[in-house]
Amino acid sequence: MEQIRVDLKTEDMPKRWYNIQADMPNPLAPPIHPATNEPATPEQMNVIFPMNLLEQEMSPQRWWEIPQEVLDIYALWRPTPLQRATRLEKALGTPAKIYYKNESVSPAGSHKPNTAVPSAYYNKQAGIKRLSTETGAGQWGSALSMATNFFGLECTVYMVRISYEQKPYRKSLINTWGASIYPSPSDQTEAGRRFREEYPDTPGTLGMAITEAVEDAVNNKDTNYSLGSVLNHVCLHQTIIGEEALKQMALLGENPDVVIGCVGGGSNFAGLAFPYIREKMAGMDVRILAVEPGSCPTVTKGVYAYDYGDTGKMAPIVKMHTLGHTFVPPGIHAGGLRYHGMAPLVSRLVKDNLVEAISYGQTGCFEAGLLFARSEGLVPAPESTHAIKAAVDEAIRAKEEGKERVILFNLSGHGHFDMAAYDAYLAGQLSDYEYPTELVEQALSHLPQIG
Amino acid sequence: MEQIRVDLKTEDMPKRWYNIQADMPNPLAPPIHPATNEPATPEQMNVIFPMNLLEQEMSPQRWWEIPQEVLDIYALWRPTPLQRATRLEKALGTPAKIYYKNESVSPAGSHKPNTAVPSAYYNKQAGIKRLSTETGAGQWGSALSMATNFFGLECTVYMVRISYEQKPYRKSLINTWGASIYPSPSDQTEAGRRFREEYPDTPGTLGMAITEAVEDAVNNKDTNYSLGSVLNHVCLHQTIIGEEALKQMALLGENPDVVIGCVGGGSNFAGLAFPYIREKMAGMDVRILAVEPGSCPTVTKGVYAYDYGDTGKMAPIVKMHTLGHTFVPPGIHAGGLRYHGMAPLVSRLVKDNLVEAISYGQTGCFEAGLLFARSEGLVPAPESTHAIKAAVDEAIRAKEEGKERVILFNLSGHGHFDMAAYDAYLAGQLSDYEYPTELVEQALSHLPQIG
Repeated sequence: MEQIRVDLKTEDMPKRWYNIQADMPNPLAPPIHPATNEPATPEQMNVIFPMNLLEQEMSPQRWWEIPQEVLDIYALWRPTPLQRATRLEKALGTPAKIYYKNESVSPAGSHKPNTAVPSAYYNKQAGIKRLSTETGAGQWGSALSMATNFFGLECTVYMVRISYEQKPYRKSLINTWGASIYPSPSDQTEAGRRFREEYPDTPGTLGMAITEAVEDAVNNKDTNYSLGSVLNHVCLHQTIIGEEALKQMALLGENPDVVIGCVGGGSNFAGLAFPYIREKMAGMDVRILAVEPGSCPTVTKGVYAYDYGDTGKMAPIVKMHTLGHTFVPPGIHAGGLRYHGMAPLVSRLVKDNLVEAISYGQTGCFEAGLLFARSEGLVPAPESTHAIKAAVDEAIRAKEEGKERVILFNLSGHGHFDMAAYDAYLAGQLSDYEYPTELVEQALSHLPQIG
Repeated sequence: MEQIRVDLKTEDMPKRWYNIQADMPNPLAPPIHPATNEPATPEQMNVIFPMNLLEQEMSPQRWWEIPQEVLDIYALWRPTPLQRATRLEKALGTPAKIYYKNESVSPAGSHKPNTAVPSAYYNKQAGIKRLSTETGAGQWGSALSMATNFFGLECTVYMVRISYEQKPYRKSLINTWGASIYPSPSDQTEAGRRFREEYPDTPGTLGMAITEAVEDAVNNKDTNYSLGSVLNHVCLHQTIIGEEALKQMALLGENPDVVIGCVGGGSNFAGLAFPYIREKMAGMDVRILAVEPGSCPTVTKGVYAYDYGDTGKMAPIVKMHTLGHTFVPPGIHAGGLRYHGMAPLVSRLVKDNLVEAISYGQTGCFEAGLLFARSEGLVPAPESTHAIKAAVDEAIRAKEEGKERVILFNLSGHGHFDMAAYDAYLAGQLSDYEYPTELVEQALSHLPQIG
């Protein structure tokens, strides 16, 4: 029988996370405190983050040992399979080989527990009793609920209202793991009440939900804030994906010609891509492709500049690709890809020409997602369909050029809690929406003036 | 790191299904044609089933080679992991080891594709263009939709109305794989229209939905009927679960003291248990435990007798444990466990004292399911919580007796499409309902008089 999946043994799971800050051609610009417009100190950020995570955030140290307690929980579902989509290849009639890293097998259904578990662990170590967070599609909120439950922490989730309504069973899942959840903007925080007054019909945004979660953490001494994407330490934790993939591809004797991930805040992309970018810098001939929705074209239409991480200007100001912190994206079904900014690490690597970016409309992504579901069985999350669409296009191009090509993408999660999106697609109710350049320009006029 | 999961390689996947008919101490009573009250011939049953599956249904042949086309699809998710629930063990403070076979990893989310794929394959071989079927919780309908799609067959699913309403995204999933679905009783069949007239408020039953699906197959020449449980060939296909488990437990050097599965029609139980019953008959010291809901206590309160397989008396009459084909169970959330009958093979093995049976109320099962979700991460299907409840009780008894005990159960599926059930449980809205003995007696007065 054809070998179409590669499982690593538990004992072969990587024991270290990779920090790309050690190897980047250009360092990151420092984060700025939103109140002082001066570089934020660890002590200032310690109000919402524990020092052990801030150390990972700031450090140039190349490798970080994964704590045993985290490895023990990872082992519930990791190493994740590397699978070859032979049935998709046949459907496309392509000479390309399409591999995907299947992160949907975690109990929370995505790659998000890779960082939720260490986030809960390090906060627990720091004596914290409760974590607050935001969630877009719900993948992150689910993951943090599961992780906090494992470590006996409480958890409060602020979920972007439009997603809360589109995905009702995310609430059930989050409750099943014992956490609390509110649609954002909520009446639980001062900022939420203000947003509701100013924008009574708002579908909510990640920027607003972040402000609520940060306020919750600032106002409660035993509570910290946990962010599921964007930050350096989050990207660090996700690199277990790429480190596993390198081992699995080595077992097959293959190197990818192109590595693909969808980007919202950038974490699942970073997880698969950063170890490959290290190899690329060391000479591997590989393209690295980040895929975003046309309705939230942060990298392809935004600017690389200092901006607030949240709408309420409570989170640190960071230098990144941004559409402006006042950006309100339409309520697309790929709720995990609706953030106005991008991980500073990913942004810097785009600037340094180590990462390419492309955007797609959602109908083409769902078309690719449906083809994947009908070829391979697995029903992907709407976010992940963006990576699939890019992989399919690469495979079609390989066919047109008559070339073999090895494609590797990250299947960041399953769509079991996103089925209303498939209903809408199958009913022909989805349209493509390109975020208009003039609205981007308008939002960008509100960027903070730094330095 | 502790070894808590055992993955087999693709090439180590078993290549044969095991037919327990070859080894049973007593043979099955023959199926009876519902119109003639005489033993049904393969030719008669060929109206709704292909001859190749009927051959598997009737044959005493011990081993059946799995076709390569089926193995290739199995390889998308099989072999499934054998996992040790160490975190659950710790939560219980038990000296017992609790292992589970994780069948939730299939793209359809349960063990059902193990037989859906060969069912679609053999029907395709026989020149059939469309399959009709019923589904209770939706696990089977999802699995057959995926499987028929792989082989280019059409598929029509009749879903028990109460489940259709409780689990709205099952419809979306089934549509995503390209199949059609109707709540049953429907207006698509004569029987459905009759049931709706006679019982306007009926929540639907598997017995009614089977009648609809069989009628659909009888009336359409290119259409066959596919049943996802009960029948011998279905149990045969599921034995890949137990054959894998035997290999995985051997790698650990362990034999289970007790093997547990939940039973509705009996297929996931049979899949794990039958290979172990073979070993038990050959001398292995192992108890085999079937777990059913108190609201549908087929084995623990029913009789072992000939009965109709469906409400409309269109399917063959078989000798089995039954609550009577007129039985209408309450709308419990474990919709997959609401069938009035039981696989004839499982029933015969109960009579021969090779299988024990026990029933539980649903609140205790959800309590165990929640404990599992919070310990192990994975949110189980309501059906699977019955097996978990029994495993937990065995582990608690081991603790009380101060004994080591090796427990192995089948985690038949995940609960991602059953979250409304968890909502109801967490809101304290579920109650235990023991099906009353007098209603059983009433239904049993309608059994057919055979021989």
